[in-house]
Amino acid sequence: MPEFRQNLATKEWVIIAPERAKRPSYSSRKKKKIILPEYEKCCPFCPGNSSEKDPAVFAVSEAGRWLLRVVPNKYAALLPEISPIRKRIANFLKVEGFGVAEVVIETREHNLTIATMDVSGVRRVILSYKERYEELMKKEGLDLITVFRNYGPLAGTSLAHPHSQIIATPIVPLWFRNQIEEARRYCDDTGRCVYCDIIENELKFNERIVMETEHFVVFEPYASKSPYETWILPKLHNSSFRYISDREISDLAPTLQNALIRLHNAVDNLNYNYFIRSAPIGDDTVEHYHWHIQIQPRITTPAGFELGSGIYINTTPPEEAARILRGQM
Amino acid sequence: MPEFRQNLATKEWVIIAPERAKRPSYSSRKKKKIILPEYEKCCPFCPGNSSEKDPAVFAVSEAGRWLLRVVPNKYAALLPEISPIRKRIANFLKVEGFGVAEVVIETREHNLTIATMDVSGVRRVILSYKERYEELMKKEGLDLITVFRNYGPLAGTSLAHPHSQIIATPIVPLWFRNQIEEARRYCDDTGRCVYCDIIENELKFNERIVMETEHFVVFEPYASKSPYETWILPKLHNSSFRYISDREISDLAPTLQNALIRLHNAVDNLNYNYFIRSAPIGDDTVEHYHWHIQIQPRITTPAGFELGSGIYINTTPPEEAARILRGQM
Repeated sequence: MPEFRQNLATKEWVIIAPERAKRPSYSSRKKKKIILPEYEKCCPFCPGNSSEKDPAVFAVSEAGRWLLRVVPNKYAALLPEISPIRKRIANFLKVEGFGVAEVVIETREHNLTIATMDVSGVRRVILSYKERYEELMKKEGLDLITVFRNYGPLAGTSLAHPHSQIIATPIVPLWFRNQIEEARRYCDDTGRCVYCDIIENELKFNERIVMETEHFVVFEPYASKSPYETWILPKLHNSSFRYISDREISDLAPTLQNALIRLHNAVDNLNYNYFIRSAPIGDDTVEHYHWHIQIQPRITTPAGFELGSGIYINTTPPEEAARILRGQM
Repeated sequence: MPEFRQNLATKEWVIIAPERAKRPSYSSRKKKKIILPEYEKCCPFCPGNSSEKDPAVFAVSEAGRWLLRVVPNKYAALLPEISPIRKRIANFLKVEGFGVAEVVIETREHNLTIATMDVSGVRRVILSYKERYEELMKKEGLDLITVFRNYGPLAGTSLAHPHSQIIATPIVPLWFRNQIEEARRYCDDTGRCVYCDIIENELKFNERIVMETEHFVVFEPYASKSPYETWILPKLHNSSFRYISDREISDLAPTLQNALIRLHNAVDNLNYNYFIRSAPIGDDTVEHYHWHIQIQPRITTPAGFELGSGIYINTTPPEEAARILRGQM
C-alpha cells in the first residue's frame, strides 16, 4: 500500500511506493566497474598537472608534498571579484554572478574516494571544509556557503579525481528560506529544535537508524525522497557547520566513511551527492536550525511526476534501506 | 560574465553561466538514434496487447478501432479506492496513498511522438487531458491535478509507446503553495497577474520569444533553470487548465507540436518532460495564477551544487536558445 509521508523538518511530502519498483523496464543501473589508475596524465588535479599552478587558498602538506589542496574553481559559475549590483530592466531582475567557487582536491591519488582513503585523509577533507567555511564567512556580501561532493557521472561529476566543492552565494534561495521558516515555526510552537526532536524520535523508534556514534546519528529519513537517502545529524545542536569541534571532526571522519562504505556495498555502481546543510551566514546561532549532512544516492531518474508535482516517489521504504545498510559492515 | 537572474513569478534565482560549458569532460549526450517499429510485441500499449484488457476511463474511437485510450496506471504510486486518513505516530505523519494515476495512450502507433503524429492526433491528446482534468475535479478529496509527459530514458520514461500521464493528489506540495503565494503577493502589490505581465514584457522585449500564435506565446523564460527550458503561456488569463476553450485547443495542438519539433531539431537526442501547471482545485478562478505548459529538456544532470543550494546553473542563455529555436522551422 503506497503512503504519503511528511518530512517533519521541511514539511515536504513524499510517496513511499514499493509496489512501483515492479513496473516494466525498471532497469537497475548495474554497469561494469571502471578501474582507475593511481595517476592520470590528463587529470588536472593529479600531482604535477595543471591545477598545481593555481595558488591554493588552503593546503595541507607533508615532507614537501601536498596531501590536500583547495583551489579556486577554474570553471566557476560565480566570480569573487565582481560586485553584486542589482539591475532591473522592466520586470527582469538580475545580479552579476558574484560568489566564490572552490574545489577541494582531497588527495594526490586519482583512484581513491572517501570510502577507500585512509580515515586520516577523510579527517583532512572535513577539516578543509571547516577552514574554508570559516574563512568565507568573513568575506563581505556572502549569505550562504554550500559544501558538497559529487561522485560518479550520474551525480554530475565532470572529473574522476577525488574532490569536493564549496560554493558561497550572496543569495539564500527561496526553498531554503521556506524550510528555515518551517523549522522556526516548529520552534515557536514547541520551544524545541525540530532536528533535535527527529534525532530523539529516530533513536527511540530505532527503525531507520543505520548507526550511532558518540557525536552523530546516521539514519534514513522517515520521508526519504529517494532510495537510500541518508542523513548524518550531529547530536550537539548547532545551526552552523562552523561550530563543529575537533572531537566531532574526529568522530565524523570514520562515520562519514562508514556510511559511504555501507552505501557502496548496498547499491551497485553507487553514484551520489552529499551536501552539508548549514544555516545562512548571520543565522549561525539560531535555535531552530541544526546543521547536518545529507547523502543523496542517484539511483532513480526524477521524471515528469516528480518535476511536475514536486512530490517524490520513493520505491524503497527507508526502514528497508536502513535494515540493508545495517547489515553491510 | 555569469549572472543571477530571478524568475519574476516564482522568485527563484538561477545562474546563467555560458562560460561553464567549457569545463573539461562536459560531454554532449549525442547517441545513436534508435529506430522504433510501428508495432512492438512486448509493448503493453500497442493494439491487441495487455493494456487493451484494462477498461478505458476515456477513449476516442473511429470505425471500431481506438485512436486514443486513457487507462488507470497499472503501476500507480497512488490508489483511488483508499481513504486518505492521517496517522501520526510520535512526530511521524503519514496518509495512505490516496490519489488517481492514469496513462493517456496517445496513439496506436508505437513509433510516433507529439512531434511526428498528425496534428489531429495532438489535438486529441490535449482534448483527453481536458476531459480527464474536468472529470477528476469532481472526485472528492483531490486537491491538485498534474498532467505531464516523459520523453526518453533521461526523462524517466519506462515505456517507449507514446503516452502522457495524469496524477491527482490530495496534497498541494509546499513549493507550489509557496509559488502561488508569491504570485498572490505580486497581485496584491500591482493588481495584476504576474504571468500576464511576463507575457507583455516578453513580447515587448522580443529577445526570448520562440513563436507567437493567436492564443499562445512560446518563449524561453528569462530565468530558465536549464538549457532550452520552454514555456507555452495562453494569452487569455485563466488560473486553471479546465477553462481551455475549443479554439485554444485547436491553436495549442500545432503550437505544442511546433515547439517540440524545434526542440528536437535544436537538441541532439532530445529527452524532455513537459507539465501543465494549473492552479489547485478550488483555486481555479483566482486572479493571481495563470495556467501554462512548461517543457523541460533533460540535457544536463543536476549535480551537488543544484541539489545542495537549490540554485540551478544554466550554461545556455535563454536569448541564445530562443534565437536557435526560431531558426529551426
